[in-house]
Amino acid sequence: MHPIRSALAAVLSLALVPDTPVIAASAAPPAAPLHGFSSAHAAEEQALEARFDALVKADDQRDWMQRLTDKPHPVGSPAGKENAEFIAGLFRSWGYDTRIEEFQVLFPTPKLRLLEMTAPTRFTASLSEPVLADDHSEGALPPYNAYSPDGDVSAELVYVNMGRPQDYADLERRGIDVRGKIVLARYGGGWRGLKPKVAAEHGAIGCIVFSDPRPFGFFEGDVYPTGGWLPEYGVQRGSMLDTTLYDGDPLTPSVGATGNAVRLPREAAQTIPRIPVQPISYGDALPLLKALAGPIAPAEWRGGLPLTYHLGPGPARVHLAIASDWRMVTAYDVIARLTGSEHPEQWILRGNHHDAWVQGASDPVSALVALLGEAKAMGALAKQGWRPKRTILFAAWDGEEAGLLGSAEWAETHAAELGEHLAAYINSDGNSRGFPGTIGTANLTTLVQQAYRDVIDPETGVSVAVRLRASALLDGTPDEQRLAGEDKPLPLKPFSIGTDYSSFLAFLGVPSLDAGYGGEEEYGVYHTSYDSFAHFNRFVDPGFRYGVALSQTTGRIVLRLAGADVLPLDFVPFAATLDASVKRLARRVDGLREETVETNQRIADNTYKLADDPLHPVQPPKIQEPVPALDFTPLQTAVARLAKSAAAYAAALDRATAAGLALPTDRRNELDRILLRAERALLRPEDSPDHSWYRHQLYAPSLTTGSFVIFPAVQNAIEQRTWPDAKAGIASTAHAIDAYTQQVDAATAVLERHP
Amino acid sequence: MHPIRSALAAVLSLALVPDTPVIAASAAPPAAPLHGFSSAHAAEEQALEARFDALVKADDQRDWMQRLTDKPHPVGSPAGKENAEFIAGLFRSWGYDTRIEEFQVLFPTPKLRLLEMTAPTRFTASLSEPVLADDHSEGALPPYNAYSPDGDVSAELVYVNMGRPQDYADLERRGIDVRGKIVLARYGGGWRGLKPKVAAEHGAIGCIVFSDPRPFGFFEGDVYPTGGWLPEYGVQRGSMLDTTLYDGDPLTPSVGATGNAVRLPREAAQTIPRIPVQPISYGDALPLLKALAGPIAPAEWRGGLPLTYHLGPGPARVHLAIASDWRMVTAYDVIARLTGSEHPEQWILRGNHHDAWVQGASDPVSALVALLGEAKAMGALAKQGWRPKRTILFAAWDGEEAGLLGSAEWAETHAAELGEHLAAYINSDGNSRGFPGTIGTANLTTLVQQAYRDVIDPETGVSVAVRLRASALLDGTPDEQRLAGEDKPLPLKPFSIGTDYSSFLAFLGVPSLDAGYGGEEEYGVYHTSYDSFAHFNRFVDPGFRYGVALSQTTGRIVLRLAGADVLPLDFVPFAATLDASVKRLARRVDGLREETVETNQRIADNTYKLADDPLHPVQPPKIQEPVPALDFTPLQTAVARLAKSAAAYAAALDRATAAGLALPTDRRNELDRILLRAERALLRPEDSPDHSWYRHQLYAPSLTTGSFVIFPAVQNAIEQRTWPDAKAGIASTAHAIDAYTQQVDAATAVLERHP
Repeated sequence: MHPIRSALAAVLSLALVPDTPVIAASAAPPAAPLHGFSSAHAAEEQALEARFDALVKADDQRDWMQRLTDKPHPVGSPAGKENAEFIAGLFRSWGYDTRIEEFQVLFPTPKLRLLEMTAPTRFTASLSEPVLADDHSEGALPPYNAYSPDGDVSAELVYVNMGRPQDYADLERRGIDVRGKIVLARYGGGWRGLKPKVAAEHGAIGCIVFSDPRPFGFFEGDVYPTGGWLPEYGVQRGSMLDTTLYDGDPLTPSVGATGNAVRLPREAAQTIPRIPVQPISYGDALPLLKALAGPIAPAEWRGGLPLTYHLGPGPARVHLAIASDWRMVTAYDVIARLTGSEHPEQWILRGNHHDAWVQGASDPVSALVALLGEAKAMGALAKQGWRPKRTILFAAWDGEEAGLLGSAEWAETHAAELGEHLAAYINSDGNSRGFPGTIGTANLTTLVQQAYRDVIDPETGVSVAVRLRASALLDGTPDEQRLAGEDKPLPLKPFSIGTDYSSFLAFLGVPSLDAGYGGEEEYGVYHTSYDSFAHFNRFVDPGFRYGVALSQTTGRIVLRLAGADVLPLDFVPFAATLDASVKRLARRVDGLREETVETNQRIADNTYKLADDPLHPVQPPKIQEPVPALDFTPLQTAVARLAKSAAAYAAALDRATAAGLALPTDRRNELDRILLRAERALLRPEDSPDHSWYRHQLYAPSLTTGSFVIFPAVQNAIEQRTWPDAKAGIASTAHAIDAYTQQVDAATAVLERHP
Repeated sequence: MHPIRSALAAVLSLALVPDTPVIAASAAPPAAPLHGFSSAHAAEEQALEARFDALVKADDQRDWMQRLTDKPHPVGSPAGKENAEFIAGLFRSWGYDTRIEEFQVLFPTPKLRLLEMTAPTRFTASLSEPVLADDHSEGALPPYNAYSPDGDVSAELVYVNMGRPQDYADLERRGIDVRGKIVLARYGGGWRGLKPKVAAEHGAIGCIVFSDPRPFGFFEGDVYPTGGWLPEYGVQRGSMLDTTLYDGDPLTPSVGATGNAVRLPREAAQTIPRIPVQPISYGDALPLLKALAGPIAPAEWRGGLPLTYHLGPGPARVHLAIASDWRMVTAYDVIARLTGSEHPEQWILRGNHHDAWVQGASDPVSALVALLGEAKAMGALAKQGWRPKRTILFAAWDGEEAGLLGSAEWAETHAAELGEHLAAYINSDGNSRGFPGTIGTANLTTLVQQAYRDVIDPETGVSVAVRLRASALLDGTPDEQRLAGEDKPLPLKPFSIGTDYSSFLAFLGVPSLDAGYGGEEEYGVYHTSYDSFAHFNRFVDPGFRYGVALSQTTGRIVLRLAGADVLPLDFVPFAATLDASVKRLARRVDGLREETVETNQRIADNTYKLADDPLHPVQPPKIQEPVPALDFTPLQTAVARLAKSAAAYAAALDRATAAGLALPTDRRNELDRILLRAERALLRPEDSPDHSWYRHQLYAPSLTTGSFVIFPAVQNAIEQRTWPDAKAGIASTAHAIDAYTQQVDAATAVLERHP
């Protein structure tokens, strides 16, 4: 044997003794620095966390999930109300000051759902999910898209891929016009609520949405109940509100949907779609797609069904009739409070929704029970005499599925006091086996990384940070591989499709996180009646081991936020993230400029026409106005200033920490007051001519995908190719960052001030 | 409207007048330089080619195809013999000195083909293709893999993706051992004959091969007869000889399979596989794949069937029984000669096979009729008094499908005289709508590019070179996009899976090309009974417009090779191609080295184990010996010397061409003698300890894919990680290139010599 080979093999055989955890899980992790804590307090905190960990029980989570998923429990349902009361009862039993807040919200439920093909053959879509033996879905809302307008339309069908603007541009190049047609779109590629919106903008009169077996069903793995993936007649329900405009009840933008709120008439609610829309299974989609002729869909548009994907229009003709009961229902938010001992006026909010489309084992109960586990453990610690320095609030939101109703209406109702008191919001919305993943504002990066460092992965016995690094090394993006290779921690993940953090982050300007484990689950049953306790226990997190891990992760984050000597915001990774984002954006504009020149040149010199297949013609793309030079200097300068100030603050905090963080009370309070409200500086000023509901100038939805993007004013203008707006967006965003930098400087000044 | 936009739009509207060819096809292309021709002779040549073009008729090609595809005509069939005689008759009628050469070759045909699943349910594979209305497949050989050994095996089934060495390595990481099992592989990923070979090396006892609907069937487009893609029960037939060892009759390696040749006993024929193998349709594969359990196949292994691809083994058990009639049959090669006027001893050979698995409209008749069109036109020109300077030979080979039998046995039989006389071989093997594509030795690059420049594309009216450039600009590799962007011609395509050029190139050392149009066909019926005249006329080249284009392209190439003042070899692109290939290979070794270090490190530090999902375990890869520094200097130096000599020859030829190429006859003859035999310098010397049949040191099959690669001694050693062999390969290849460079220098010396 080659000597090097045998040396490596020796290492390998040592390391891979079967069934032995690589590093034995230690009952109490070694004391390690904690951002915002003096070293003495860090040791106390870690001792507390060891007690906390021991109080988190998988069996609790199993029992709560069984109880909470026993019946379908969407907003407005009797089971939804019962679950809210059950949760409130738990909190009360654990010693929390608990109340249920009610909101009156618009929540349509289906009266009529008809989809039939009338030509070239007749077929009526089942629009229903077969009931399985271990189902608890009796009385479920049938598959529908909430907020579809009522309508009765008949037309030829067109397949539009994911129904994004670029998909319609591709159809146009193939000579296909959807005006007066009904479109068939597949789920994926951004926020579903944009599918009927974009379809209507292109003249379609109806919209059908289906889940292709690739990536939801048999292509990915065995379907339920054999495996965890979407069976033939499973249907993804979902709200179709246009959340690029605002979140929450469509009738009460910006104000809480309390009983006496002033409401828009339904016709004036801008977030409600304009054309009827209905989701279907791939079983129901199959005959529709089979009946389409016309050009063959581009390769990337083809899914996993056993047919040749054609675009149409027709000869398939369909008849779609939708009518809803446009009910006002009550949403029940459960709010539980553990008042802080030193800074009762500084609030840390931990939330997860409790409503579900049907049973909702994975979405949302898997993470809700982790939250309950945290609350129970903290309640027990409190009964043993512990008190958080800051106030901890737990929230179980209602109506998230319909459009973040519970969280948005609560945030709007309490906007003034939350603006004053809320230091951070920690969300979750589902959990499964796998690797830790946290979305968030980058000023919380260090907090999250230190939590990952201190939580043990139940599968391998190493910290979840170590396991995450292993995954990044093997399967990460090039950037992640590089960072992991240099043994640097990974940045937080960027915000994507909104969930209950949306109002806190983007409407109120609160540093926010959204945490959960994942990557090893079999989960194709999202928003179907098969997202059940039975499914969860077999395919998502058997034994609730990652439920416990999530409690230990988000619990730590909440405990540290509530217990730190100084609010643990780190501006250094924040500045680094912004810097990387500006660079990426500048590169993207450069790429777009080159691509536009190239494409225009290829159009002008006839290259598209020459390369085209005349039997399957595709017209050249449209000529685009050249991309002008876009000066990112204001943004780069602002980010550079922030980076400098962030480094100064970090150095000052290091010095203060080395000195035991022994600040006088008034200075500590002053410092926290600045830190708590720093993020508000990033909100669009009240006197801005832009009155968008999304006020955070660093994070808001993309108008084309509905996913959150960074620097939204700039990104959306680039997407729309409105270059003057992009320039203005650079200026206003830079201005906001400068305002934030002033807060950082003010914090540093407090730290450095000599009495 | 934006001024730039409107200016571009104006250009666009001028260029895109509907149905107007972009550039009017001119009856006689403008005179342009021709490599190897004096300017006076170039003008004469182009006038001749205009006459040639006018003599090529689509209707001829249609009529010949109809006649030649009327019955199944594999080697050894009555229709095969009739077709050979029909082709010989055509050549004779056009004035060629024509004969049929016969070889006695081993060609097994099926007696027994049984594939049944015995557990967990019973299913018997149909192994047959439904007959369609317009079929002429009566009496076809049923779907089988020629040269499968006889056998009767029963075992559990394992899905092995494409059955390549790396696929078995992946299976091993998933704990799956194929010893004693029957493997199910899909077509694709290299030469099919390696599938049973590699399976047997891993201990499998039987092999089944199927065509997945992705990329052969409904995933790509509508299936025949609606569209041109593979229908549910279509089966790709094919030879399973291990052509990495040698081509042609398995019983007569290196010698012609004449009646009295010394033959190996069948058991000693190394190219015949060791385990029974049978091809099936995706219709027959569906129940087998559905009956597999075990781990889920990696995402890239999944095809287009509506199921979850599992690996097995079992619970599917299959019984495979194969028996053949191991017949000796006669192969009929048609050889037609038009003797040269000035250099009858210098031969230009143009070939295409005539045998087919069934009707063979696309493969091979589409290109055979283009060859016949060329021959007819040249015959007509000859009757009008024209004579080529060099001798033109046309060949219609038999038995290509079985293993290049006709061409290999002919090349082996006539090795000595071909070594002496053959200047170039121009192959084709199929043709369809689309873009020109030519594989070849890079010393023929300029010749091919000048032919593309002078042939008009029937769809757009521009030259096929312009159309190819348009395609490269939009859809090419980054290298192709760059070259096309700089308006530089594209290099020839590298040799891949072997066809009839194999013997001439790799056994005899003759500069070779393989030409055909393609890219706009619907062709999933390769080697099935549906590759018919009806299919071809609807989905491959309706109206034979690209058949005419191919005749005009390869006809030009043959005419110019036969008519040039000096054999038109250009060593400059040859050296450039070798240079790029050495650089690519060096980069690949560097990449492999880094990857090996990285992978070994990740194994040693336990990263694979930490990132692994214990419910779906995948073992780490095996530790590999580190990749040593591999010194490419000898190869780089040799290529640099060649580049310098190539430039010197090009300069000398330019000067001579400017002077009218008025060389005295003896010097011209001497020059051509050197050029004609230069490539032989690249053959492995007779006294080499390596007695491989593949003697060309620049091109031979990869042992892992069966596809031709450049620098095979080096590439195969790298693939096998036998680094001393790689070093030796670099030295021997460099030595061969040096020998070639000496020939180039000798040619330059003749050009430069003053009388």
